[in-house]
Amino acid sequence: METLVLTLDLIGTFAFALSGATLGVRRRLDIFGVLVLSFAAAVAGGMTRDVLIGATPVAAISDWRYPATTLVAGIVTFFWAPLIERIDYPVRLFDAMGLALFAVAGTQKALDYGIAPPMAAALGMLTGIGGGIARDVLMARVPLVLQAELYAIAALAGAAVVALGYWLNLPALPCALAGAGLCFGLRVMAMHYGWHLPIALQGNNDEPPTPDGPAR
Amino acid sequence: METLVLTLDLIGTFAFALSGATLGVRRRLDIFGVLVLSFAAAVAGGMTRDVLIGATPVAAISDWRYPATTLVAGIVTFFWAPLIERIDYPVRLFDAMGLALFAVAGTQKALDYGIAPPMAAALGMLTGIGGGIARDVLMARVPLVLQAELYAIAALAGAAVVALGYWLNLPALPCALAGAGLCFGLRVMAMHYGWHLPIALQGNNDEPPTPDGPAR
Amino acid sequence: METLVLTLDLIGTFAFALSGATLGVRRRLDIFGVLVLSFAAAVAGGMTRDVLIGATPVAAISDWRYPATTLVAGIVTFFWAPLIERIDYPVRLFDAMGLALFAVAGTQKALDYGIAPPMAAALGMLTGIGGGIARDVLMARVPLVLQAELYAIAALAGAAVVALGYWLNLPALPCALAGAGLCFGLRVMAMHYGWHLPIALQGNNDEPPTPDGPAR
Repeated sequence: METLVLTLDLIGTFAFALSGATLGVRRRLDIFGVLVLSFAAAVAGGMTRDVLIGATPVAAISDWRYPATTLVAGIVTFFWAPLIERIDYPVRLFDAMGLALFAVAGTQKALDYGIAPPMAAALGMLTGIGGGIARDVLMARVPLVLQAELYAIAALAGAAVVALGYWLNLPALPCALAGAGLCFGLRVMAMHYGWHLPIALQGNNDEPPTPDGPAR
Repeated sequence: METLVLTLDLIGTFAFALSGATLGVRRRLDIFGVLVLSFAAAVAGGMTRDVLIGATPVAAISDWRYPATTLVAGIVTFFWAPLIERIDYPVRLFDAMGLALFAVAGTQKALDYGIAPPMAAALGMLTGIGGGIARDVLMARVPLVLQAELYAIAALAGAAVVALGYWLNLPALPCALAGAGLCFGLRVMAMHYGWHLPIALQGNNDEPPTPDGPAR
Repeated sequence: METLVLTLDLIGTFAFALSGATLGVRRRLDIFGVLVLSFAAAVAGGMTRDVLIGATPVAAISDWRYPATTLVAGIVTFFWAPLIERIDYPVRLFDAMGLALFAVAGTQKALDYGIAPPMAAALGMLTGIGGGIARDVLMARVPLVLQAELYAIAALAGAAVVALGYWLNLPALPCALAGAGLCFGLRVMAMHYGWHLPIALQGNNDEPPTPDGPAR
């Protein structure tokens, strides 16, 4: 069981690291910048969760397998970037898998640290989306996870299943599987059919969004 | 007393959440992105303070009323964005109130954790401005709190009153009220009269600021 | 010995604070914004390290000398910005010195907290480059430390020497000196000769990097 979870977790780490490294290559970072971005994309979500709940030293610096995995993903991407671009669809599937696994595992860890179920679900979502946010903030762009088809909300849905199951005293493993399945399914369906959440109506729809307007 | 502080704190949280959600709507994020930005703007300052002083799990994930407040603010903004835009001035007053309350409460909490008064004041300022910084960094723009009329320094002034009162063994409540009043007053006056702090003279004033210049 | 380390550490802090303040002046922040950026550039790396390993409250808010140093650097830069620009080369030398000292001291602190040597080296690197990342993210640009001539990797090289020495049970002081010397030397040589790490080949080399492409 432990081995299965670890394997899945490392697959998720690998997928997120690929996403960070791919962006780094596109932005013409050197190989070391690519490795740093790859690492940040893969572990920032879990690091933030661990810091917020006080689980220090954080897991990503205690277990060598996580950094090693991001290192491999970064090097692979650096040397075979055109290939990775061409297999974009499998990478996005891995990414959805990583999102599902991180959301579920993040929620479980927060529950284990005594966080109340609703906030544990929020932390699970953060575990899933934090890496993508760090990756995009480092590249000075608005995080895709706040804009793409159902992404953060898919993570939250999966996390909520785990938190709800905990609250109802259901066994952990089936809840984790159901949560991961829901998140993965939602994300894949959203990619296929272009599902989006609604955007607010605005009074000044004819104006472009002002980059440095007086938003407070 | 406790109830008063909590009420004021939640008003501040609501005001900051409004500011985050308003920006999210302007940047055409979907409803979930708006909620995430609203949450980040409201709690990032307090979260950062708690993490730096080691008060984990951080308050914003232990007490459900804070996330619930940001949720309400985000939904209200999403559905009535044009209205919120029109009542911009009251929102800015709420924001100033939130700044004052967060700066004072943040300083007090740091002092309670044994931080020396000058650094407690700095942490109080950070509590006040951290949410606005997180909001703007997520939207890939230079934080307004580093540019607007007296903002960060108003927070620091209010925080300094609390820290100074603590150092002089004065009673906490009057100091908190004086600090909050000073911060709120400074900020409102600065908005009314357009007060700004000075900007440095530059040798190359005829050149525009270079976005990617060789600053080291 | 202690005094020497402290002196060198404060020189590093001063150099990084200068770099933050210089960028703030160029971006026409007001004096307070300049001070905040100066502080962030000088202490963000060490703060992040301390938070990740659980060494809270973090050092930068426990010892008044660090914020005081950044304050002095910020004020000096604000009033003599044209002068600081003109002595750009010495500032870059100080910056390289700060990088070396922070990388070595950060690694040592992580080792003292029981972090395994490879991750301690990574944390040492993070201590060195974290300030520059925070500075650039706050100014909404891609961090220079991910793009410049050998920078992050020079920090990692210096940190690795310390971690390796620890693993081999060598005495700490000579390892620290060797690590700092290696990092400083690499960085200075890279500045002189324009050394760069390689950039990945891309399939779509004729296209410009797409700022909001579908990177996942």
